[in-house]
Amino acid sequence: MISKRLRASLDSSICIRDIFEEGKKLAAVYGPENIYNFSIGNPSVEPPAIVNEAMKEILDTEPALALHGYPANVGHPEVRQHIADYLNEKYGCTYTCDGIVMTSGAASALAMLSNTILDKEDEVITFAPYFWEYKSYVETFYGKLVPALCNMETLQPDPETFRAAFSERTRFVLINTPNNPTGAVYTPESLKMVASILEEKEKEYGHPIYLVSDEPYRKLAYGIEVPYLTDYYKNTIVVYSYSKALSIPGERIGYIAMEPEVEDFEDLIAGLTASMRYLGYVNAPSLQQKMLMKCVDASVDISIYEETRDILYQGLTEMGYTCIHPDGAFYLFVKALEEDDAHFCEMAKKEKILMAPGTAFYGPGWVRISYCVPAKVAKESLPGFQKLMEMYQK
Amino acid sequence: MISKRLRASLDSSICIRDIFEEGKKLAAVYGPENIYNFSIGNPSVEPPAIVNEAMKEILDTEPALALHGYPANVGHPEVRQHIADYLNEKYGCTYTCDGIVMTSGAASALAMLSNTILDKEDEVITFAPYFWEYKSYVETFYGKLVPALCNMETLQPDPETFRAAFSERTRFVLINTPNNPTGAVYTPESLKMVASILEEKEKEYGHPIYLVSDEPYRKLAYGIEVPYLTDYYKNTIVVYSYSKALSIPGERIGYIAMEPEVEDFEDLIAGLTASMRYLGYVNAPSLQQKMLMKCVDASVDISIYEETRDILYQGLTEMGYTCIHPDGAFYLFVKALEEDDAHFCEMAKKEKILMAPGTAFYGPGWVRISYCVPAKVAKESLPGFQKLMEMYQK
Repeated sequence: MISKRLRASLDSSICIRDIFEEGKKLAAVYGPENIYNFSIGNPSVEPPAIVNEAMKEILDTEPALALHGYPANVGHPEVRQHIADYLNEKYGCTYTCDGIVMTSGAASALAMLSNTILDKEDEVITFAPYFWEYKSYVETFYGKLVPALCNMETLQPDPETFRAAFSERTRFVLINTPNNPTGAVYTPESLKMVASILEEKEKEYGHPIYLVSDEPYRKLAYGIEVPYLTDYYKNTIVVYSYSKALSIPGERIGYIAMEPEVEDFEDLIAGLTASMRYLGYVNAPSLQQKMLMKCVDASVDISIYEETRDILYQGLTEMGYTCIHPDGAFYLFVKALEEDDAHFCEMAKKEKILMAPGTAFYGPGWVRISYCVPAKVAKESLPGFQKLMEMYQK
Repeated sequence: MISKRLRASLDSSICIRDIFEEGKKLAAVYGPENIYNFSIGNPSVEPPAIVNEAMKEILDTEPALALHGYPANVGHPEVRQHIADYLNEKYGCTYTCDGIVMTSGAASALAMLSNTILDKEDEVITFAPYFWEYKSYVETFYGKLVPALCNMETLQPDPETFRAAFSERTRFVLINTPNNPTGAVYTPESLKMVASILEEKEKEYGHPIYLVSDEPYRKLAYGIEVPYLTDYYKNTIVVYSYSKALSIPGERIGYIAMEPEVEDFEDLIAGLTASMRYLGYVNAPSLQQKMLMKCVDASVDISIYEETRDILYQGLTEMGYTCIHPDGAFYLFVKALEEDDAHFCEMAKKEKILMAPGTAFYGPGWVRISYCVPAKVAKESLPGFQKLMEMYQK
């Protein structure tokens, strides 16, 4: 007696978490040091010490009733102002306190934006390969996710597939850079192209089409600047999460940021405020919000991820694997050695290597390696990848 | 460019929070000691000290990466087991770890249950007067909320309106005791009646109809035992929040509890697990979950609420107001002195008294007084209520 809608979605979903759980079982049998579990994007670098220090200081100094009481649905005003100030200084934006909505991470922000903007059968375009949960955030509110496949030679947005994905029901475009699952950072050229097609389509259909930029990996970029999307397109809504920057994905904290010039700004804020209640959030957790007063620019030591990326990227390309050099996030997107990526992942399990099939990300024929593992694990996995290659060379 | 669906809902909603904000503005003008703001249910009794102690101990002792990392979508297994054990001992239930899903408070649990169980146009019955947000949790997922008006002499469920509310699209019945907005605790006799009609209707329609018991006020009952719903009806799903018991509504922590004998138990758990992701929760905040290892049976000092209730109940009834003696929560439901409860609330503002109109709760002709205010405020509001009564006696 669960809904038919949910039943259909459960039956069709490829759950990467299942692969992760399988990895844990294999670790129990073969020893964790013999399993190379690259299946899920679970941060592996210690949170910066300031996270716990800030929380303890708040618990020690703020009156408990107010600290743990209801903030406004959209969050504590001083936290929102602090984030607006930080972003304005860092990216030259024009955010005000009113344009920052505190959320329970980026996932909640995307679900709330879907609820706020979409009527039944309205459409959302996203660049594929994409994080599979995007489909759920849109379809839960009876919307439709339309993928626009990237150029698979560069993993950058492709103008032709993008333009072809529009219809008059298109309400927003969901963009994710640095990207999950590919690790690609979209270039200024790509973003200019995206903005120019968006402007053209806004004119054609006569209504705003928002660019929703999902940025949980913004801080995880290696020797490269991640462009800030408001520089390219006016109707940009930024979605941020501290899950990866601070290694606190279990604590669920992030925000939505909108500059006042975004079209229908006040309606969007009213809609998000209502969505905060209607979806049952009420507000993002209070202590986690307050913690940001001290941690807004803190970061994990990303050189640890970078080292692991280099080991795997160099190792795999030297063996002959096809892999576009990823500049951000903690993912490598690698071409499978056969068309059936799920079968390729099964083959890899013979070498105790667990990866996620690209089909789950609308990127068939590829696989995702989440390299949020110790460098040692990455290094020791290489002979297994070599044997996997040899299986296909026979 | 927000959705038509949300726009319609925003335009029709009476926002109690607006009254509360108005009260804050009045307090700035007239001094907070001269404003009697009974508009919202914001806990006013200090959280027990164990809440902060537990959080700090966890921050000091648990490895940060694991503490702040992703737990399972449904929550930390040790926390779920701890809650199952507690409930089994206290209420003689048969919960297992698998039947406890950690949620971001009760609101999130209700939204997730709606998403899990409802297809478009499926129906949910609730006893009116009811917490207005129930409508949003159901309609956001394209369901329909059907009110069954209580007997307004007793504020207990009424068998005739209840039976009449069913259709073959009825998927669950949402019950809330102690009740917001009335403060009523539903009696064992009422619950037997509810269960027996539910059993009759399950047979008639040939599918399970769940009883979803929303219990954020369970700990706030004065000299009375609140019956535990699983004792009455097999297909009961309990929804709990620590917001009121621990005065931590801003921290968003609660759970869903299902005994293994609930029909389609495994499908429901799978559906809730998916809903946790699809609605963007991913998981309830990790630190708040862990805190419960030490706080599962802690409680605020409820004698403070009881004293305030007594002052207002005795004061108002002595003046001639009609008010059913409330045994729980922190609400008094009082008959307005005219048919138009919104206008009555406006009249009360002349005496600097802010209350919520019953119409917002599908209880027209009544008003809700949230007595989570200091006893002193309650006492000093009485002359204003007396003058209000006199305005209507002229």
